[in-house]
Amino acid sequence: MAIKRPKGTNDYFGIESIILDRVMNEFKKSFKLFGFEYIKTPTFEFSSLLKNKYGDDSKLIYEFEDKKKRKLALRYDLTVPLARVVGNNNFTQPAKFYNIGSVFRYDRPQKGRKREFIQADIDIIGDSSLGSDAELISCMSNAFFRLNLNPVFRVNNRSIMEKIFSKLKIPKSKYVQVLRTIDKLDKIGITGIKKELKAFNISDKNLIEIIKIKGNFSEIKDKLDKYNINIDLVEFEELLQKINSIKLNETNIIFDLSLARGLSYYTGNVWEIDSGKGMSIGGGGRYDNLIKDLTGKNLTGVGISVGITRLIELMKFNKGDQKKVYVISIDSDVSDIVKYLRRNGINTSYNLKKKNIKSSINYAYKNNYDFVMLVGSEEIKTKLFTLKNINSGVTEKLKLDKIISKFK
Amino acid sequence: MAIKRPKGTNDYFGIESIILDRVMNEFKKSFKLFGFEYIKTPTFEFSSLLKNKYGDDSKLIYEFEDKKKRKLALRYDLTVPLARVVGNNNFTQPAKFYNIGSVFRYDRPQKGRKREFIQADIDIIGDSSLGSDAELISCMSNAFFRLNLNPVFRVNNRSIMEKIFSKLKIPKSKYVQVLRTIDKLDKIGITGIKKELKAFNISDKNLIEIIKIKGNFSEIKDKLDKYNINIDLVEFEELLQKINSIKLNETNIIFDLSLARGLSYYTGNVWEIDSGKGMSIGGGGRYDNLIKDLTGKNLTGVGISVGITRLIELMKFNKGDQKKVYVISIDSDVSDIVKYLRRNGINTSYNLKKKNIKSSINYAYKNNYDFVMLVGSEEIKTKLFTLKNINSGVTEKLKLDKIISKFK
Repeated sequence: MAIKRPKGTNDYFGIESIILDRVMNEFKKSFKLFGFEYIKTPTFEFSSLLKNKYGDDSKLIYEFEDKKKRKLALRYDLTVPLARVVGNNNFTQPAKFYNIGSVFRYDRPQKGRKREFIQADIDIIGDSSLGSDAELISCMSNAFFRLNLNPVFRVNNRSIMEKIFSKLKIPKSKYVQVLRTIDKLDKIGITGIKKELKAFNISDKNLIEIIKIKGNFSEIKDKLDKYNINIDLVEFEELLQKINSIKLNETNIIFDLSLARGLSYYTGNVWEIDSGKGMSIGGGGRYDNLIKDLTGKNLTGVGISVGITRLIELMKFNKGDQKKVYVISIDSDVSDIVKYLRRNGINTSYNLKKKNIKSSINYAYKNNYDFVMLVGSEEIKTKLFTLKNINSGVTEKLKLDKIISKFK
Repeated sequence: MAIKRPKGTNDYFGIESIILDRVMNEFKKSFKLFGFEYIKTPTFEFSSLLKNKYGDDSKLIYEFEDKKKRKLALRYDLTVPLARVVGNNNFTQPAKFYNIGSVFRYDRPQKGRKREFIQADIDIIGDSSLGSDAELISCMSNAFFRLNLNPVFRVNNRSIMEKIFSKLKIPKSKYVQVLRTIDKLDKIGITGIKKELKAFNISDKNLIEIIKIKGNFSEIKDKLDKYNINIDLVEFEELLQKINSIKLNETNIIFDLSLARGLSYYTGNVWEIDSGKGMSIGGGGRYDNLIKDLTGKNLTGVGISVGITRLIELMKFNKGDQKKVYVISIDSDVSDIVKYLRRNGINTSYNLKKKNIKSSINYAYKNNYDFVMLVGSEEIKTKLFTLKNINSGVTEKLKLDKIISKFK
């Protein structure tokens, strides 16, 4: 008689929810540290807002009708709703926003892909300098560092790609098609790309070689020289220099000329964040026309999003540092002790149902408590309490104030 | 050309989102302090899960069909999805859960009522003792205390009401109808109640007087004695005693025999939380049959939810303690200083666009920064920086380490 949950959704509890909570907190902390301000937009929007914003992926928009037949859609990302808000309100610029919440894609659910998943997003509105791009990458990089993750930020730039296309004499009318094709490298491989380009009457061998170019700034420069593409890479160089001046931790950056992603609204730099295990965990870019197209207000934008729930896969079995104590009453009332621990900020629970000690410790273990504390009449008389670390098995006899200081 | 957001939704930014963030954090902190474990359920469920769970309010379920014509519904509360999860999984009992997230009601949007709003919810599954009820009220009460709010918890108990009905010789078959009528006291008044009861052939004057009874435990006892209703109030008495033994702060509890609320799944104590300004900001109760009805698993439950977004109304203009610094570059590069502040955990932003000092300070004021710090070549040479408190106008000249310690 089990009632299932809908396809592509998930319930998070136990170790998974502890990790989820920790991951969300670290991103939030980093966003605040970099001065981003919280914004919360609705879970659903009018579908008209989302249409034609996500290129081929627009088919994944989770549309529905409400009881009055209004055409609504669960939000596909956090960027387009933000664009609506900044277009409809007057913020002093530049405005820096963060948002963490569920987004929805009507996708075929598969390993690591859900129909509902959580994104963490930061955006800077109203500043067209590369300082904003650098600020976003530095901020995200800091959050990853705090989570002991070490992903690679792949970067490309649409105007640099257009300069390359121009050198290769590709007709301007075909830029968008060519970028879309390049974007499919992971899916269709070099053979597939060649085939598609041929269909557009583009058979430049150099283009195929160029989109294989990946590396640090000097490697990119050298390789482009090799193909006689002498173009201005100042946007790459300045971005790197600005990231280096503002970043708090190591940041892995690779330039990758095959990266095109989410073309529909990106205009300048585009990023993709790779877990280092071949998994994309986020991305973003500059969208200097999106807000104008949506609302008529001429405002530049740049943003970056991370798929939080995907990170949980990478962090399995890393419980984090959220210590909890389970107070086990043997034969005495424990409410004063529980109160004392909680007043001192220690996350505490206790046995509502009296059970024997062994099964109480077993309960605490299964429920991810870190310590159990045994309380009987003997302990209350001597004021010495047994504190047992459930994972290590180490047992200590301590006074209450020592227990408190142990957790500070 | 502004694209609107759908009816009954809201965008939170500026002071509102700062308060929202603070309120959510305080509830989360309190939930963890009391040993509740995070659970996150999907934003939508099969509508079949939600049907017949909310009494008359079932008409407010936000149903829709997905592209494959599956009948889904945005979640109406956080309790019924939790009941699904605990029914479908094996948790060691008692299990204590918290969840904070959006819920949806297809209601007529009006002041203080939105179609999407945020609830904070705690539940204890698998313990039928009043210790669990007390734990929930104490925990919520602690969160309110930390937010400087002082609401009243109104309490009633369904089995006590049934004992009263029995004394008044109301036929058992009419208990549910009578409770539903009583629940409408706020909406239809005593006259409306009398009329409805009359339609059920119940015209007991004492019943009308009894449902007006409100007060502390001894007041309730005295007034029931006055109407010759001598019943056992042990559940009220024990609940009070248990709350007193475990609560961390003052808790305002009033017994109110007119309270019936959300009858469809409640079985024992029911609560409503009043802001003190006549606004209901939450409620809950014991639902010992809900999980069994849904999943066949015989598990008791008790829970309490607070409407977070309603609290924001009560907290307007209380910005909280989230200090932010805005570093203003006069004629020097500030990236090293920004880095230093952030490495020391201070939420910091800086002027990406160079503006004059006055308009920079104005920008910081409008964006809810607390301090501005001025950095020019003079400051870098002397290592003394001007820190201005934007709200008080107080200005100090300080070294970097003093600025850091100011924020600790």
